Amino acid sequence: MTSRPPRPRERGIPEATVARLPVYLRALQALQDRGTLTVSSEALASAAGVNSAKLRKDLSHLGSYGTRGVGYEVEYLVYQISRELGLTQDWAVAIAGIGNLGRALANYGGFGTRGFRIAALLDADPAMVGQSVASLDVRHIDNLEDVVRSTGVSIGVITTPAASAQGVATRFVQAGVASILNFAPVVLNVPDGVDVRKVDLSIELQILAFHAQRRADGDGRDAERAGLELM
Amino acid sequence: MTSRPPRPRERGIPEATVARLPVYLRALQALQDRGTLTVSSEALASAAGVNSAKLRKDLSHLGSYGTRGVGYEVEYLVYQISRELGLTQDWAVAIAGIGNLGRALANYGGFGTRGFRIAALLDADPAMVGQSVASLDVRHIDNLEDVVRSTGVSIGVITTPAASAQGVATRFVQAGVASILNFAPVVLNVPDGVDVRKVDLSIELQILAFHAQRRADGDGRDAERAGLELM
Repeated sequence: MTSRPPRPRERGIPEATVARLPVYLRALQALQDRGTLTVSSEALASAAGVNSAKLRKDLSHLGSYGTRGVGYEVEYLVYQISRELGLTQDWAVAIAGIGNLGRALANYGGFGTRGFRIAALLDADPAMVGQSVASLDVRHIDNLEDVVRSTGVSIGVITTPAASAQGVATRFVQAGVASILNFAPVVLNVPDGVDVRKVDLSIELQILAFHAQRRADGDGRDAERAGLELM
Repeated sequence: MTSRPPRPRERGIPEATVARLPVYLRALQALQDRGTLTVSSEALASAAGVNSAKLRKDLSHLGSYGTRGVGYEVEYLVYQISRELGLTQDWAVAIAGIGNLGRALANYGGFGTRGFRIAALLDADPAMVGQSVASLDVRHIDNLEDVVRSTGVSIGVITTPAASAQGVATRFVQAGVASILNFAPVVLNVPDGVDVRKVDLSIELQILAFHAQRRADGDGRDAERAGLELM
């Protein structure tokens, strides 16, 4: 963690820009891994799959404008975006529901490098409790409050069956967890001030189907352009 | 499948509207399950987590305006959105990479009800080939072309390790699959006209972290509003 003066543009970043910052960050980290020191807005935009005008606009919200003829300094831009997203902190994550999806997330390599630490795994099945998954012992869901407190969990991931998801969400909230990522196919009711993001894996397929249908209808040019914008 | 005249507004739907149609569809299907016949734009907007002006604008792109004092007919709107998304067709899906995530997707109940049929499972591990997962036999990835042809696969899902993903994508494309959903943490190179959507599970966490940081900074009102918009 670094100590710096408050960010001047802190409050004004559009939600759509926030959603693209992780995509820019991933592209920048790939450049960093290859030892690249500076990048033009065109090259970065292309790596991130957006047009360069949108990229420059997005980064201007962070107070980052690049240098004419040089572009952006990769290392500093990684730092700026990480700080903006809160990734210079360490976020402890608990996963509730250790079926196939919970296991896949527990073993997902992409979290650790981005400031997310899987701190706890919870399940209601006594046969699962005590098993080691991704070097963590699975704890019983009845210990949720203890586990959240002792491991400092601030983000809860729900990968339980639909019928259990609301109960788990309510317990997360009561234990003080105000950020929930929900994979269960159900809409969660949570109090104001709790941030829920819902991942519905079939939604991505539905958007693909929309474009595939357009192509099948002989409207290939439209689908192609849309595909490029989406990547 | 239903045969109807061509849709008049076919080409003009904004990409952001397309991305919200599956969310409206899910809310409508929940209403349908409860026997609801009509719904006001306010009630549907609230169930879908958007404001009602945006909802009405989105649905107007489908030529659906509702009836003053009555709202929308649930059943007809389900049909209109399903048709627009291409879900009145049957889409055969192949999953390549049958680790935890591939298994989770193969067993995911939400696909079948939305017109997606998991038609084939592929893996490179000989020990996995022939195993039964979600009532399908896992086939060797070397048979990809045969499997795509014999099962009519039009959407390929990649849940392989990062190092194998590009090779699998290239084989999908060569076998005629023009829609790819990629879970592997790598950017795929595909020819023009192939539609790739990338799912990065850490991106959702990063957006949650952004809002959690805002709340921690005492900017709770903003985070709350953003959370509502995102749901």
